[in-house]
Amino acid sequence: MKYADSGVNIDAATRALARSKEAVRSTWDERVKNELGAFGGLFQAAPGEPLLVASVDGVGTKVMIARLVGRYNTVGQDLVNHCVDDILVQGAEPLFFLDYFATAKLEEDVLPAIIEGFAIGCRENGAALLGGETAEMPGVYGAGEFDLAGTIVGRVRAEDVIDGSRITVGDKVWGLPSTGLHTNGFSLARAVLLDKAGLKVTDTPAALGGQTVGDALLAVHRSYLTPVREMWSAFGREAIHGLCHITGGGFYDNIPRVIPEGLCVNVDPTAWTPLPIFGLIADLGGVSASEMYRVFNMGIGLVVIAPPAVDLTGIESVQAILIGEVTTGAEQVALPF
Amino acid sequence: MKYADSGVNIDAATRALARSKEAVRSTWDERVKNELGAFGGLFQAAPGEPLLVASVDGVGTKVMIARLVGRYNTVGQDLVNHCVDDILVQGAEPLFFLDYFATAKLEEDVLPAIIEGFAIGCRENGAALLGGETAEMPGVYGAGEFDLAGTIVGRVRAEDVIDGSRITVGDKVWGLPSTGLHTNGFSLARAVLLDKAGLKVTDTPAALGGQTVGDALLAVHRSYLTPVREMWSAFGREAIHGLCHITGGGFYDNIPRVIPEGLCVNVDPTAWTPLPIFGLIADLGGVSASEMYRVFNMGIGLVVIAPPAVDLTGIESVQAILIGEVTTGAEQVALPF
Repeated sequence: MKYADSGVNIDAATRALARSKEAVRSTWDERVKNELGAFGGLFQAAPGEPLLVASVDGVGTKVMIARLVGRYNTVGQDLVNHCVDDILVQGAEPLFFLDYFATAKLEEDVLPAIIEGFAIGCRENGAALLGGETAEMPGVYGAGEFDLAGTIVGRVRAEDVIDGSRITVGDKVWGLPSTGLHTNGFSLARAVLLDKAGLKVTDTPAALGGQTVGDALLAVHRSYLTPVREMWSAFGREAIHGLCHITGGGFYDNIPRVIPEGLCVNVDPTAWTPLPIFGLIADLGGVSASEMYRVFNMGIGLVVIAPPAVDLTGIESVQAILIGEVTTGAEQVALPF
Repeated sequence: MKYADSGVNIDAATRALARSKEAVRSTWDERVKNELGAFGGLFQAAPGEPLLVASVDGVGTKVMIARLVGRYNTVGQDLVNHCVDDILVQGAEPLFFLDYFATAKLEEDVLPAIIEGFAIGCRENGAALLGGETAEMPGVYGAGEFDLAGTIVGRVRAEDVIDGSRITVGDKVWGLPSTGLHTNGFSLARAVLLDKAGLKVTDTPAALGGQTVGDALLAVHRSYLTPVREMWSAFGREAIHGLCHITGGGFYDNIPRVIPEGLCVNVDPTAWTPLPIFGLIADLGGVSASEMYRVFNMGIGLVVIAPPAVDLTGIESVQAILIGEVTTGAEQVALPF
């Protein structure tokens, strides 16, 4: 199976968004400091000020797994952590977060659990849950379905922005473990595990070592704020040349977002063992390795690029794994498949 | 008919949100400067700095009208203008906006039109369209359906925050015209006009004077940024004691959000003629006046409260209508029904 078989057409979205580039740019002036396609937008309200960094996201069809399991207080954490990671890779730390929750028919026990998840995520990242909107939209949403969107705003001093420009040949490439799928690839995971293989979220297939399918899929997206702060503290901000959040599009689409042209991140996938859930999806779905690394994070949620002198294994809590090296190359990212 | 008959239960949402107050507050520290229920969140990253003001919203089931009419480039403008007005009433001017668009199946011609709407709205308000997220979620959304959410961030100097505390007995209450329903009450409007009365969006009922139902319903939410800037410029910022955006909950629920306890805004609804679309909904739905003023803006999208010496009719472009006066009272808002 491929991602497109699950009803999600990334190419169509890419084409449609390409048509909108000029419209988006027409709203920008000298205060916008990022390029299109960055993990977060960079905005400098006035010269000399720190930059505000903002990002918006959802958790995709992970919401459908939450509903099947009946666990509503983790998807909010997923979304906050996802957003935190999106601005963290540009060097920013969070200030506040705003949520949007919409559903077909408001269930009085679901909404407080959803908001509890947002609040847990915000507290853990030191972000204020500054606003929210709840909408009841029968007809737009399928019966019992709901969706979430969240926006984070953080900031970073101009001299601390990480834009990948300091990445150079010979830099080491590190991976920080993910907890599972995080918030991407759920349409393919659902198509393989639930539809094709007929598993239920309460099943405990041998490959998961006792864990239920639901628990494996709902594992909370990890915030990398604490480990990155530890790196900055131990080695200095300037020692971290690049950070990449492995989100939708996996290794192939995300790493090029932060790598300068002419350089290539060579990833050695034998350097770590992907979490069991990924093997289960690949096996049951007959999904190729290249498709797996294009859709999922495969157990690595954050990629850190630093000069050889920086040994991240020196900070045990960071759990960094050496997964590759920066070379010259036209492709920006290379895997052996 | 009442709003609750259209499938939207405001009371259930209010109860569920009340249960979440402590969770939200648990994420706040001294940097959060607003109370729960404000139009926008106020955040002061460090003492002495201007305040960031942020708000998130959707356009409700106005998206369903857009789909029926096949006009996709106005709902984005609606959402930007709605958000601009939400932070404007606290004295803030916009910096940037981020959008979320999710749908069952991405249509390549719809997405660029949606984003065009966001871009038009952003340009007109001088806000950068700093980020966006597009999600394709078959199953969560009904076939052909979509939803939008948007977040705005603006700022205001601490001394320029409008919090209603300067409102006093004898202040005059002005109304600025809306263009139509703006972005609220669409579930009731649809239930009355399309379901109960059987109108189509292409119909031109006599009450609308030649306008189609679709055009009347899709009239773009007005941004009050320019007229409010003109007021500030003409009379000084301190002359505007209070601003209230008439959104979901109409006059009855929004005015108390900005009026100090013990004071009452007495609104004289004979002071202006509501737009024809409101009369049509009231007539065809048998909707009571009190329900109409509780759900809709009735032709007044922004309420301005200022001392008697400030005569807003002196600025013709603002189109202000004197609609009432501030007195003492326990109810915070009073209408004759």
